[in-house]
Amino acid sequence: MRNLKSQISNPKLLLALDFGGTKHTAAVIAPGEREWQAHRRVFSSPDADARYDLATMYSLARDLLSGEQPAAIGVSFGGPVNATTGTVYLSHHVPGWENTPLGKMLEAEFGAPASVDNDANVAALGEHRFGAGQGYSSLLYITVSTGVGGGWILNGQPWRGGDGMAGEIGHTVVDPNGPLCLCGKQGCVERLASGRYIAQRACEWLEAQPDRGRILRTLIGSGPPVDSGQAMEAVTAQMVSEAASEGDDLAWEVLEVAAWALGVGIGNAANLVNPQRFVLGGGVTKAGERFWEVIRRVARETALPEVHFDVVPAVLGDDAPLWGAVALAEDCLR
Amino acid sequence: MRNLKSQISNPKLLLALDFGGTKHTAAVIAPGEREWQAHRRVFSSPDADARYDLATMYSLARDLLSGEQPAAIGVSFGGPVNATTGTVYLSHHVPGWENTPLGKMLEAEFGAPASVDNDANVAALGEHRFGAGQGYSSLLYITVSTGVGGGWILNGQPWRGGDGMAGEIGHTVVDPNGPLCLCGKQGCVERLASGRYIAQRACEWLEAQPDRGRILRTLIGSGPPVDSGQAMEAVTAQMVSEAASEGDDLAWEVLEVAAWALGVGIGNAANLVNPQRFVLGGGVTKAGERFWEVIRRVARETALPEVHFDVVPAVLGDDAPLWGAVALAEDCLR
Repeated sequence: MRNLKSQISNPKLLLALDFGGTKHTAAVIAPGEREWQAHRRVFSSPDADARYDLATMYSLARDLLSGEQPAAIGVSFGGPVNATTGTVYLSHHVPGWENTPLGKMLEAEFGAPASVDNDANVAALGEHRFGAGQGYSSLLYITVSTGVGGGWILNGQPWRGGDGMAGEIGHTVVDPNGPLCLCGKQGCVERLASGRYIAQRACEWLEAQPDRGRILRTLIGSGPPVDSGQAMEAVTAQMVSEAASEGDDLAWEVLEVAAWALGVGIGNAANLVNPQRFVLGGGVTKAGERFWEVIRRVARETALPEVHFDVVPAVLGDDAPLWGAVALAEDCLR
Repeated sequence: MRNLKSQISNPKLLLALDFGGTKHTAAVIAPGEREWQAHRRVFSSPDADARYDLATMYSLARDLLSGEQPAAIGVSFGGPVNATTGTVYLSHHVPGWENTPLGKMLEAEFGAPASVDNDANVAALGEHRFGAGQGYSSLLYITVSTGVGGGWILNGQPWRGGDGMAGEIGHTVVDPNGPLCLCGKQGCVERLASGRYIAQRACEWLEAQPDRGRILRTLIGSGPPVDSGQAMEAVTAQMVSEAASEGDDLAWEVLEVAAWALGVGIGNAANLVNPQRFVLGGGVTKAGERFWEVIRRVARETALPEVHFDVVPAVLGDDAPLWGAVALAEDCLR
């Protein structure tokens, strides 16, 4: 009876799923609405595999749907995906996802059309449809977090590229003489601007400059001098950011390198693709106004004068992929 | 009588115009044909202005049309254009073009719809529709000549960007510690890879390394030692290329820098946009197989392993903009 009533009042419920690296989220919403009818997030287990994560997500979704059949399903997946077929290529975090036909499996499980894409593309779509990109037909969404990723909207639609790999601004080279990245290149944006490498640079500079970084050292909690091994464990990009905002010059200089790299990467992308807007999200972008000023100044200096754009903060935060999944589900119904 | 017969046999003649920096070309062709019905090229006068160039082009076109009215007109213009309205913003070579409604003027003059875009976008469309890009729905066309320009095809259509400026790979920075370009930036692709700067680098290296570059010095014709001022006048990228192919190590190293810069720029563009193919045209790309090998190797090293693409020579040569103009005219009829 409860289900029947609910079906009548929600004839077209959308199911949005976000398979993240460390947490999974499911939510249901009515098309056109901007408030979740139900929303649940769980942390994934460190020793989870694809089967476990799928079972978790099925269970979350069934709970939220309370027996209803969704009208459509949108999915953000934290790894490379064939968006045309809905097949996951693999996950860099969780084993067992190789060549999983996630879209088809969800369609069979819930009896509704499903659309799947990788988290950067889906977050870009989320910001475009519901966030900082509303009204802009072309944008690059960039997430600056542990890594640096991105997703395009061109002509109002996701642009995925020939292999679904478009948007990888983190792996564009901005300083060929810069430090070596895990990706094998020197001086790519990710190597200079990601949270992981901001923390690493802070450690290296603290060790090399024992008379500087007092505030940062205090935040790390071990007082000067910090041993490099110790610091590598303890320091985070957030601490660097906090120390910089409290006046620590070394911490600021560490951040400034990141802002510079993002600025060059954005300016290059502006010259190459000329989108109207760059939308930046992720923890590192919370580093304060001075950080944003450097990004904007360097991007402006790098781009040609005739190329116009702005660089603005994302507004949907961690929910950008989930809102993008709503947009994917909406598009299934068109 | 002659015109009437011709009208009957050519009910839908297309007019293609190419306003270049140093020469103007007009051609007529029947839709679907791959042979020009008529084709004429003239060199522009060094002291021409927009009015003069327009009169020249009108006269060329009227001769070729022999009194017929074209079904549609496609135009490649050597400078920034608003492709939506067909208005030329300006020419960097010829005075008087500021805000000229070229599309509207041609429509009034010839009584047919006209479509106008800048030469890089139009050449990209030409290679896509009739040249090395046939069958590829996404590509970046790059011309490496006096300068370095480019144009995108995405989803089988030109991608022009918010300001019509997309494709400016020449102004992406690949070495922030590199030499200063006229554009105000250090180490952009154009500063390292364009014909103008290849010639300049050759001069500088000849002067700095008096014991090297024997073959190149001979080609320049003044024998060692070459005075820098002299060489700047005399040396061309083509000479550098010729000397390199004859075994001149200095000349090859000058070219290698250009190939490296193009490789990084292409690899970055591959990561960022993930097009299926890069099509390279312009005089500098005739520098031989070794030049191409470096471009391809560096592009491959710069791009992520999951990003697939190839790098191939343009096939339409100087006629790429004219063939693109045919494609624009064809699209007017759809």
